[in-house]
Amino acid sequence: MGKNDKHISSQWRRKIHEVIYEADTPAGKIFDVTLLVVIIISLILVMLESVPELGNNYREQFIIAEWVITVFFTIEYILRVISINKPFKYIFSFYGIIDFISTIPLYLTFFFGGLNALLAVRSLRLLRIFRILKITRYIGEADKLSKAIRSSGPKIAVFLFAVMVVSIIFGTIMYLIEGPEHGFDSIPKSIYWCIVTLTTVGFGDIAPETPLGQFLAAIIMIMGYGIIAVPTGIVSAEYSKSSNDDKVNPENNADYRHVNTQVCQNCLSKKHQDGASFCHNCGASLDD
Amino acid sequence: MGKNDKHISSQWRRKIHEVIYEADTPAGKIFDVTLLVVIIISLILVMLESVPELGNNYREQFIIAEWVITVFFTIEYILRVISINKPFKYIFSFYGIIDFISTIPLYLTFFFGGLNALLAVRSLRLLRIFRILKITRYIGEADKLSKAIRSSGPKIAVFLFAVMVVSIIFGTIMYLIEGPEHGFDSIPKSIYWCIVTLTTVGFGDIAPETPLGQFLAAIIMIMGYGIIAVPTGIVSAEYSKSSNDDKVNPENNADYRHVNTQVCQNCLSKKHQDGASFCHNCGASLDD
Amino acid sequence: MGKNDKHISSQWRRKIHEVIYEADTPAGKIFDVTLLVVIIISLILVMLESVPELGNNYREQFIIAEWVITVFFTIEYILRVISINKPFKYIFSFYGIIDFISTIPLYLTFFFGGLNALLAVRSLRLLRIFRILKITRYIGEADKLSKAIRSSGPKIAVFLFAVMVVSIIFGTIMYLIEGPEHGFDSIPKSIYWCIVTLTTVGFGDIAPETPLGQFLAAIIMIMGYGIIAVPTGIVSAEYSKSSNDDKVNPENNADYRHVNTQVCQNCLSKKHQDGASFCHNCGASLDD
Amino acid sequence: MGKNDKHISSQWRRKIHEVIYEADTPAGKIFDVTLLVVIIISLILVMLESVPELGNNYREQFIIAEWVITVFFTIEYILRVISINKPFKYIFSFYGIIDFISTIPLYLTFFFGGLNALLAVRSLRLLRIFRILKITRYIGEADKLSKAIRSSGPKIAVFLFAVMVVSIIFGTIMYLIEGPEHGFDSIPKSIYWCIVTLTTVGFGDIAPETPLGQFLAAIIMIMGYGIIAVPTGIVSAEYSKSSNDDKVNPENNADYRHVNTQVCQNCLSKKHQDGASFCHNCGASLDD
Repeated sequence: MGKNDKHISSQWRRKIHEVIYEADTPAGKIFDVTLLVVIIISLILVMLESVPELGNNYREQFIIAEWVITVFFTIEYILRVISINKPFKYIFSFYGIIDFISTIPLYLTFFFGGLNALLAVRSLRLLRIFRILKITRYIGEADKLSKAIRSSGPKIAVFLFAVMVVSIIFGTIMYLIEGPEHGFDSIPKSIYWCIVTLTTVGFGDIAPETPLGQFLAAIIMIMGYGIIAVPTGIVSAEYSKSSNDDKVNPENNADYRHVNTQVCQNCLSKKHQDGASFCHNCGASLDD
Repeated sequence: MGKNDKHISSQWRRKIHEVIYEADTPAGKIFDVTLLVVIIISLILVMLESVPELGNNYREQFIIAEWVITVFFTIEYILRVISINKPFKYIFSFYGIIDFISTIPLYLTFFFGGLNALLAVRSLRLLRIFRILKITRYIGEADKLSKAIRSSGPKIAVFLFAVMVVSIIFGTIMYLIEGPEHGFDSIPKSIYWCIVTLTTVGFGDIAPETPLGQFLAAIIMIMGYGIIAVPTGIVSAEYSKSSNDDKVNPENNADYRHVNTQVCQNCLSKKHQDGASFCHNCGASLDD
Repeated sequence: MGKNDKHISSQWRRKIHEVIYEADTPAGKIFDVTLLVVIIISLILVMLESVPELGNNYREQFIIAEWVITVFFTIEYILRVISINKPFKYIFSFYGIIDFISTIPLYLTFFFGGLNALLAVRSLRLLRIFRILKITRYIGEADKLSKAIRSSGPKIAVFLFAVMVVSIIFGTIMYLIEGPEHGFDSIPKSIYWCIVTLTTVGFGDIAPETPLGQFLAAIIMIMGYGIIAVPTGIVSAEYSKSSNDDKVNPENNADYRHVNTQVCQNCLSKKHQDGASFCHNCGASLDD
Repeated sequence: MGKNDKHISSQWRRKIHEVIYEADTPAGKIFDVTLLVVIIISLILVMLESVPELGNNYREQFIIAEWVITVFFTIEYILRVISINKPFKYIFSFYGIIDFISTIPLYLTFFFGGLNALLAVRSLRLLRIFRILKITRYIGEADKLSKAIRSSGPKIAVFLFAVMVVSIIFGTIMYLIEGPEHGFDSIPKSIYWCIVTLTTVGFGDIAPETPLGQFLAAIIMIMGYGIIAVPTGIVSAEYSKSSNDDKVNPENNADYRHVNTQVCQNCLSKKHQDGASFCHNCGASLDD
């Protein structure tokens, strides 16, 4: 009987697990879409609350809405914890921590009052979107892109290091030429200006005013112009190469891989093969 | 006799159809160029009218010119409707609606007075230019380009999504660091600033003033610097690939396709083969 | 005897022609370098003269220097005309007109006084530099580059046309949203702002202040971000293609072509083969 | 005995040489990391000292820290000189001069007082970082990158020359159109503005205010937009080509080359083969 109970509970938990963690069933899809909508509404509320006119006039409505969302997230968090065999594995996973942090800000206001910093914490809910988007058809593309960026990584690192060196040297020189009277108050601020210029952002909050400073600024800009070409060229070449590799080895192609959203209830491992009945990591049986 | 009349009317309509909808005959070309000139003049007038010095001093001249253009567009619209076998198909097509909207603003002023929003409506005349430009030698190129953009689409979407996420997270952090006293009035405004910075536009209407804010801004800029490389690399690789595909399958090459401006009088379908005598869609005979 | 005289004069003219028009002899090289230096000095003087502190205090010195340069250019112009068989062909050629215009500003001041516009005319001397630089080792590269740009031309034209359309439509919308009270005085100014934003220049002299305007501005910027990728991708692919073509047909390679500076004394035609003794255009014998 | 002494001294010097100049031994690595940390601390101190609030309040602490660093660098410099067979070769090498200049600023203040320019000199310590970073795994990448930049060099030079010409011509025209009353004080300043605009930096400290000036500015920006594509396309194509070359000739691949940090004690030459026992340049035996 106890076994039967456990079996029923297990089935109930298995059901919840399927709905919450996977997106292969209609219920799972509805859950994911609902969650996505709630997260987006929550983010929009955080933004609107920060607008002085709205935040002050509709303070009560914002608090009520935040309560509704917090309760929803709390229930979701509890279900996530109890529907899994090894809850601590989830709790201390990346998304487990994000989920926890996304849920508690309102509870913390009991202890610390309406801290501003809690706003930022609520913005972290955005990261939860990534988990949900695993179901989209963009997986393949994102995978390919992140591969191209990863393989360009060291090159871009070398490059950005060079940018830093240029900024530090020219920033120091500009500080000496322009000086505090033209807004170049200190070397760090001067370096900040140099990065603003090299990256072609150009706020104009600080701008050289002496002829020599303007001449040097022109050189920095033209350098930035040539420099912008390098990371672009690199990514372009890498991406082009990775596209060719896909042609040669079609199984390498990210489009064919893990478009499957199965998650092992036991160990949370992902990327199971299509139609797999057992977890490739711990051997536990998978929902099907 | 009735039949003869109908035949004559049919020939007359066929003639108008050929002139208005196609650009293969001298008359059709003259019509298209005239229309292009009138549209451009109309657009320039809309722009100039918005310049306070001109709009106030030459109000009457602008009204007269607008009347002339409106009458011209009205006649053109009526001819378009009557010269076609299935007028409703045209009226509710994309260009049919654009044509209608481009023509009526002046008539509406009788009912609603000189609304400012009618200016914007008149700017939509610009879209009519696209229909005329189908005759240019740029079709092939535009086609190739739009193909490259379409095939890069999902990748760029993934990418822009990432940009949005970065903007929201850093926007919130900058709002907390800088706060309303330095122009970061609310999170949405802070996100706006973050997009302005990431895209290297850098208006400078809002700029960080605290050292920590400037440090973070420098990081955002350098990220934007690396980020700008990605869509460029993608389009470059895609375009390069599509060029290679053209080499392999020359018929794929956009330059060889539908440079023909035949439009079926019956069903408005396009892209007929060169020398086709009957519509590939409805079987009606084509002008030749 | 007359014939001998003519022969001597012909030899004298041939000598001058060789020095002025070609760069294969030591004298020709010295002449070109001298000319280059004089042109650059002349340009620097034009610039410095426009600086109020310098222009007012050293007015006399500037006038003297300008006289020296004008006399030098006058002599050069006369020599160019008399050393050639068909002087009118030179006089009405592109560089002939540039040379003439570069020389006369000072003479014109006798008739029109110190017009400001003559400054601009003197800046055209810059274009003369291109003729001299034909001798550099960069010819091959410049040729390859201009080929890549030319072949990308129609694509970039299509693209810039699209940019114009986007600017006009969004410019009009921004004018309606922001209006004159936030600096969007008229539609043309609004379009100007839109181009400033799309191209990621972002002066900040005009910036949206309403939330809706800032939201739209953010969309324009992100579009500009995606848009900047397209011409880059095109040039990159074209350039890459043209490099590959060079590999296949080495004679196509710009590096192997007309690095030779021979110019026919009779018809001014260029790009003679190495070691050619007669002009490929008019059959006149070439200097060797 | 003298010989034995010399032998001992030689071994002692050899040991120092190995620690200071190479990074293959644990001691060498510790030394390099220590040096890196000291250089970075030194740079941070230079920056912080320039911040008025810090520089004035903690003047004493900064002076003490600077003394500690200077003593450290002095000892290092002396060891570098004495541990090598041909000290003058080191002293007049690029890094020898940088090391000397990095060390002396504080000593110079005895003679010249606390000159501002000595700040800039201390920033040159940054260059010392490059020597240390030779040990990183980024060597291969940096090498590949610098190869791509070098081979794109002449093309980019041609290109930047074109940018200069465009800037000078449009700068002069803008000076004539806008004039000093709108911030275009002189032609050099106008050229500076033109470079700011062409490179899409757009500070906004100077911005056109007349309709004609804004129209011209729009053209300059759209040109800059098209222009930015060219260097990017070039680097991209070159980099792509150099990657392909690597595939064909794997030994060409920078990743396989001189990841070895051996430096000959006799002649300071580098890039010895792995496992080499004698210098490939002077034949002296290498540390192993």
